[in-house]
Amino acid sequence: EGDDFERVKQEMVMPPLVPVHDQVAKGGPKIVEVTLEIQEKKWEVAPGDSVWALTFNGSVPGPLIVVHQDDYVELTLKNPATNSMMHNIDFHAATGHMGGGDISEVNPGEEVVFRFKATRAGVFVYHCAPGGMMTPMHVTSGMNGAIMVLPREGLKDEKGNLVEYDKALYIVEQDFYLPKNADGSFMNLATANESMNEMANSIKTLIPTHIVFNGKKNSLTGKNSPVVNVGDKVLLISAQANRDTRLHLIGGHSDLFWPGGKFNNTPYTDFETWHIPGGSAAAALYRFREPGTYAFVNHNLIEAIAFGAIATIKAEGE
Amino acid sequence: EGDDFERVKQEMVMPPLVPVHDQVAKGGPKIVEVTLEIQEKKWEVAPGDSVWALTFNGSVPGPLIVVHQDDYVELTLKNPATNSMMHNIDFHAATGHMGGGDISEVNPGEEVVFRFKATRAGVFVYHCAPGGMMTPMHVTSGMNGAIMVLPREGLKDEKGNLVEYDKALYIVEQDFYLPKNADGSFMNLATANESMNEMANSIKTLIPTHIVFNGKKNSLTGKNSPVVNVGDKVLLISAQANRDTRLHLIGGHSDLFWPGGKFNNTPYTDFETWHIPGGSAAAALYRFREPGTYAFVNHNLIEAIAFGAIATIKAEGE
Amino acid sequence: EGDDFERVKQEMVMPPLVPVHDQVAKGGPKIVEVTLEIQEKKWEVAPGDSVWALTFNGSVPGPLIVVHQDDYVELTLKNPATNSMMHNIDFHAATGHMGGGDISEVNPGEEVVFRFKATRAGVFVYHCAPGGMMTPMHVTSGMNGAIMVLPREGLKDEKGNLVEYDKALYIVEQDFYLPKNADGSFMNLATANESMNEMANSIKTLIPTHIVFNGKKNSLTGKNSPVVNVGDKVLLISAQANRDTRLHLIGGHSDLFWPGGKFNNTPYTDFETWHIPGGSAAAALYRFREPGTYAFVNHNLIEAIAFGAIATIKAEGE
Ligand SMILES: [Cu+2]
Ligand SMILES: [Cu+2]
Ligand SMILES: [Cu+2]
Ligand SMILES: [Cu+2]
Ligand SMILES: [Cu+2]
Ligand SMILES: [Cu+2]
Ligand code: NA
Ligand code: NA
Ligand code: NA
Ligand code: NA
Ligand code: NA
Ligand code: NA
Ligand SMILES: [Zn+2]
Ligand SMILES: [Zn+2]
Ligand SMILES: [Zn+2]
Ligand SMILES: [Zn+2]
Ligand SMILES: [Zn+2]
Ligand SMILES: [Zn+2]
Ligand SMILES: [Zn+2]
Ligand SMILES: [Zn+2]
Ligand SMILES: [Zn+2]
Repeated sequence: EGDDFERVKQEMVMPPLVPVHDQVAKGGPKIVEVTLEIQEKKWEVAPGDSVWALTFNGSVPGPLIVVHQDDYVELTLKNPATNSMMHNIDFHAATGHMGGGDISEVNPGEEVVFRFKATRAGVFVYHCAPGGMMTPMHVTSGMNGAIMVLPREGLKDEKGNLVEYDKALYIVEQDFYLPKNADGSFMNLATANESMNEMANSIKTLIPTHIVFNGKKNSLTGKNSPVVNVGDKVLLISAQANRDTRLHLIGGHSDLFWPGGKFNNTPYTDFETWHIPGGSAAAALYRFREPGTYAFVNHNLIEAIAFGAIATIKAEGE
Repeated sequence: EGDDFERVKQEMVMPPLVPVHDQVAKGGPKIVEVTLEIQEKKWEVAPGDSVWALTFNGSVPGPLIVVHQDDYVELTLKNPATNSMMHNIDFHAATGHMGGGDISEVNPGEEVVFRFKATRAGVFVYHCAPGGMMTPMHVTSGMNGAIMVLPREGLKDEKGNLVEYDKALYIVEQDFYLPKNADGSFMNLATANESMNEMANSIKTLIPTHIVFNGKKNSLTGKNSPVVNVGDKVLLISAQANRDTRLHLIGGHSDLFWPGGKFNNTPYTDFETWHIPGGSAAAALYRFREPGTYAFVNHNLIEAIAFGAIATIKAEGE
Repeated sequence: EGDDFERVKQEMVMPPLVPVHDQVAKGGPKIVEVTLEIQEKKWEVAPGDSVWALTFNGSVPGPLIVVHQDDYVELTLKNPATNSMMHNIDFHAATGHMGGGDISEVNPGEEVVFRFKATRAGVFVYHCAPGGMMTPMHVTSGMNGAIMVLPREGLKDEKGNLVEYDKALYIVEQDFYLPKNADGSFMNLATANESMNEMANSIKTLIPTHIVFNGKKNSLTGKNSPVVNVGDKVLLISAQANRDTRLHLIGGHSDLFWPGGKFNNTPYTDFETWHIPGGSAAAALYRFREPGTYAFVNHNLIEAIAFGAIATIKAEGE
């Protein structure tokens, strides 16, 4: 299916960046080639607090993929021989085959290629789902990201008119469950496999030890703050692969927020806070009207401040 | 009210089955007679983990009731003399009288009959609500279910066109809070009353010990998996009487998902995951396009895998 | 901006009351003057369980403010010299300047005046946000409330027709995290500052010790129950500044529920339960059809009964 379509290769970029893309599709459906390399690596989620992160392309979240509705995604998933575990990928944007999970299992030293058609418009989670307890443990070790499937004719506002964004930011919340020693300190584990053994207990608390944006506490604050211009319409693309969250832009709103993150529904206007059920991606559009700093938070303010789920966005200009 | 309406008796069936019903109502409003018998019984929620379940008709959830808007439900609630507690029933589909809770209190050895008009279309929770701490304890011991009130003219899609389903499945999440001994093992309690005494403490953690679909871990997996045919439009009827959940069909979506589970609202399309606030029922329609296994999960993947909130649906055919 | 507009002073009233207001705006936009005085005070959240409450005007929640879209709110925020801490106010209804948070910081013995334009219609949270850990601690010590910004032409139902309410009730959920001694009893703290020191630990559990409506267990039950008349259309204005909740009126429904609490979206009908993500306000309209008592609950029934999130509304008449 789609074998005679034009092929384009999408260059992955690091979050919060989004790949170069057209908002309104040019020409007919394409095969979009995407390559993701799995990296297992030690990861400092907050100063002094380390975890074994399992990642797509070395970032938490994995990179954003952007296609148009009816494009095919041809994914190459590489699991280098230096890794220790089998992984795979389940795309919530795909249909059948466990979202691709049952045709993408890949052992260390192998790679797999598979293709799916992006039949539905919206932002969708992807994540590793190797089966049994490995599924929640890989997902809460960072192994998730999002794909944005744009309508071919672009996004529409609540009145059905085309709306184009000036910038897009990709900010994803991750809950971590670091295993603890008997004295309450965090374990310092030698390997990713040891981490899996211990997390089988730590995740059962259902209470994370860290809740952060883009993988690490303060990854998007201070000098790492995303910058926008006053007047910009910014598409805030977010996701939470496991746990409910509620996002709020301090001093801002969503001008448009698509129900369930799915673009063929009429967007809402004026939300102060938007809820993301665990296992969903979300998209909100906001035009920055005032210069200054806007904190972007999980508005369980304990989770924002005491656990780490806060970014700051700087709006420059007049 | 409704005294001269035609009477029909609805045969209750075990979840995940739904009673025989018309999708488009034939003729005028009816009195639908439903009988529920309360059963208090020892219940193995997971291998080796027992609880005293409080049930409507012996299943968790209680059986699905299906009527049409403007029908009357005439409920006979039987509390056999072998039971130990007073119970009642609160229908979220009813108006006034504490949803029926204050006119349905029934002691062991008694039965009660009451009638309400189903004025609103949608899926709604029903549950026991005997008052005070007994209310959360009965509900989290399994004493809840759902009623589906169909519009007389049937369901409509997002464009307002009639949509008919080929099959319906009734899959309800239950959170249990098993009391624990000081060493962390689960208590083995001799009576339902002892269970109530201990649960007054265990529920206060707000962290369940088990989160399962249809009453028991693996009640809907392996050889118990519901089976559908490729091409079927399946109505997934679900509920959570107490605690928020977020449902996802791995490899699938909702083609239609009704806001708040209420059919007189325009349905959304394309959701990857649908949120159910505790105390709500939900309905999603999906046409299975591919053969194979679809896991249906609470997409807090820890709750799905480590706590039990997972089913598998098998789609047969080509 | 707005300097030559007519000025009106709004008299604050105690929750669950709402200030006198027009539903349909008379004349053009106005400057609405509001004064809030911060009070730090010992507070009995449940019999025998005390906390240092931080409050706007001495109530939890702070008083409801009501304006129309395009009105200006001119807020005077007073921090008496008898208080011990710096406070401020962040309005989710405002644009820029951290919702007003960065231009409203006020030390004990000072007052501040600032103005913002209510550009969006809906109910919105306001709260203290003094920075760092003080933000979640002040908010979960009671320092939050709501503002209702009505469309100038009034509210509309799902068909776009004007809908007027006969009464409005303002019922807000508050999660408290009382610090505990080693033996599990609640600490009895001498000052608000000591309370802040201890709450830096207690909030990290993410599990509240109390979840109540309007600041105290049983503040809206028994003889304190709000009273309505049968036939009244009642606007139920609610909020949760920090933690998700799910509201249900036992024996009732929402005839109209505005997505995200924002009035320029088409309201839903018939909800049994409405979800509020932490950091949002909500509005539901219900016409009471039957006399009797209606419990209004957080339908995590454990949170309603064991933690305190329940009110009762009495409907009088025939
Ligand atoms: Cu993996
Ligand atoms: Cu998933
Ligand atoms: Cu009962
Ligand atoms: Cu209920
Ligand atoms: Cu304050
Ligand atoms: Cu806020
Ligand atoms: Na804000
Ligand atoms: Na707007
Ligand atoms: Na999926
Ligand atoms: Na669709
Ligand atoms: Na009810
Ligand atoms: Na209605
Ligand atoms: Zn394209
Ligand atoms: Zn300004
Ligand atoms: Zn929720
Ligand atoms: Zn999945
Ligand atoms: Zn296939
Ligand atoms: Zn006004
Ligand atoms: Zn939620
Ligand atoms: Zn109820
Ligand atoms: Zn009556």
